[in-house]
Amino acid sequence: MGKATDDLIRLANEVSTVRPPREMDMLLTSGERVSMALLCMALAELGIDALSFTGSQAGIITDTTHTKATILDIKGDRLRDTIEKGQVPVVAGFQGVSTDHDITTLGRGGSDTTAVALASALGADVCQIYTDVPGVFSADPRIVSNARKLKRLSFEEMLEIAATGGRVLALRSVEFARNYKVPLQVRSSFTWEPGTTIDEEDTSMEQPLVTAVTYDLSEAKVTLPGVPDKPGISAKLFRALANHTINVDMIVQNSSLHGTTDISFTVPEDDLETSMKIANDLAGEIGVSAPQSDSDIAKISLIGAGMKSHPGISATMFEVLANESINIEMISTSPIRLSCVIKRDQAERAVAMLHEAFELDREQ
Amino acid sequence: MGKATDDLIRLANEVSTVRPPREMDMLLTSGERVSMALLCMALAELGIDALSFTGSQAGIITDTTHTKATILDIKGDRLRDTIEKGQVPVVAGFQGVSTDHDITTLGRGGSDTTAVALASALGADVCQIYTDVPGVFSADPRIVSNARKLKRLSFEEMLEIAATGGRVLALRSVEFARNYKVPLQVRSSFTWEPGTTIDEEDTSMEQPLVTAVTYDLSEAKVTLPGVPDKPGISAKLFRALANHTINVDMIVQNSSLHGTTDISFTVPEDDLETSMKIANDLAGEIGVSAPQSDSDIAKISLIGAGMKSHPGISATMFEVLANESINIEMISTSPIRLSCVIKRDQAERAVAMLHEAFELDREQ
Repeated sequence: MGKATDDLIRLANEVSTVRPPREMDMLLTSGERVSMALLCMALAELGIDALSFTGSQAGIITDTTHTKATILDIKGDRLRDTIEKGQVPVVAGFQGVSTDHDITTLGRGGSDTTAVALASALGADVCQIYTDVPGVFSADPRIVSNARKLKRLSFEEMLEIAATGGRVLALRSVEFARNYKVPLQVRSSFTWEPGTTIDEEDTSMEQPLVTAVTYDLSEAKVTLPGVPDKPGISAKLFRALANHTINVDMIVQNSSLHGTTDISFTVPEDDLETSMKIANDLAGEIGVSAPQSDSDIAKISLIGAGMKSHPGISATMFEVLANESINIEMISTSPIRLSCVIKRDQAERAVAMLHEAFELDREQ
Repeated sequence: MGKATDDLIRLANEVSTVRPPREMDMLLTSGERVSMALLCMALAELGIDALSFTGSQAGIITDTTHTKATILDIKGDRLRDTIEKGQVPVVAGFQGVSTDHDITTLGRGGSDTTAVALASALGADVCQIYTDVPGVFSADPRIVSNARKLKRLSFEEMLEIAATGGRVLALRSVEFARNYKVPLQVRSSFTWEPGTTIDEEDTSMEQPLVTAVTYDLSEAKVTLPGVPDKPGISAKLFRALANHTINVDMIVQNSSLHGTTDISFTVPEDDLETSMKIANDLAGEIGVSAPQSDSDIAKISLIGAGMKSHPGISATMFEVLANESINIEMISTSPIRLSCVIKRDQAERAVAMLHEAFELDREQ
């Protein structure tokens, strides 16, 4: 069914240059409707009594932001009734019904998030996400051949992995799981391997220093040079970006030496054009030099719950990159993550070297 | 979008040999969802503010008979609100939501019926049905080249035309229109011709004797020979057929001469196999000869509000057929219709001859 959404978007382009978001949601939710009905038929063929439910029927209530709705509540009564009768409910992911009774889609990550939200609403022991890989790895196995499948991760580690380019789980679903303490299992649809469990941090044991290394090629960098170092300018910039629902990732501002400073930030490449327009408007308003952009970047990140208590990790990371003559353009850290922006064509090499240097192929 | 439903049915066949009706409804309603969202986008492109509504959102409440649901009620509040705001509601035809909150389809004729039911619920002046022909004709123009487009028909005439093979409007939608007195207009999607108006009978003027001649090749005949002429047997037979929701059309039972009688009836050809099974079971039960079936039949019908008061029409019809050496196998009449079952390959000739004999190409 993979191409169904593309086909629908192509049809929309054929009939119209405008795409009312409400109608796009109406259009695109038809795909899940088809998939779940077919799944229930396939289950019936196996003698399993299954019932499909749209987001609306499952009681997935969202706000009214079409194409990017947020789940407000799940009224799972029909699902509970179905389960109690021994039937298998199959729920359309990615969709809900708004408080205005319109059909909404949840946007990026919406399918995983639906699953986690349902698990939470139904008080499930665990939410199993079946995907095309057998779990979460210490690095992308396509780049690092001896990447190791991780048995267990904390929500925080998984959050950082998802936020820095790990494509296994959507960030949003992990956030939901952490907030509502829903244990996750990432498993393969094709094997019976146990997969990766994501749960609350197990503070009773020593944490591994570094768990995984990730990379992200989907971002671009914007730099505003020579910004007057006075209060309110950053606020104005990032409020304007937020108002356009642009997810700013890394932000770096050097301390000012000459009364002006450079502000750099990264955004999804898809949002670069809008971001540059906003940056140019602001530059015009405060009369500073023209903003610059760079799409030729990669973000590589080290993630590990044990990094909190071992600040030496950053030194090792910088040394590994320096030995490979890889220049670091931006640095950003969290208690359990360390990210560097480098040139895009150096990303794979950096990931492989860091995986080796921190011996991520070994059980820790 | 014409092939979308066929594609969905093909997908269903690929995944399963069983087709739970609830899931078939979930599957097939996705087609209208796609169509209406695309239509709203096309309207938006033209600057027209349009909103799509599923059957459920439009408040089309049905019973719980999946794939053949009946409309119980229309709660048109959202549609009224939309119209009051000057927006154009686009409602998915053929679908509703059951009293059990499941998604249902209305089965054959469901799209036209949705339109008529909405027109009734909203108190519309008229329900315009846009189709691929410019109106209702005195005979099928593919067979009778000088067939005449009819300006005005009574509900009763249109009912008989729809029931006897006229493919322009579904019988069910005409029944609904008659019951709720919703004037219909059948018009072409491709021209601005005024089309055919269907409304209550205009009793103030002389009725035309014969308005149209129709034919139907979709039926088959079943005959039970030598049935004991005692009460209850017909009831048992037709109750069993009704329980399988088989629409029996013509029924002929000759008066008994020797204590037994022959019962013949016609059913949609698709239902012939089931009908024969039921007939065989009953024949076994009461110990009579084996039922016989014949698919090689056609039903041709004359329709006209003026026939009520002119019984001579039947004589003319039989003469026309006799002159063409066309044998009549069954006859059935209503106050404004006269139908004969003949051999299938004689249908087109019979229609052309009757159209000519009753001068249906002339304004009456």
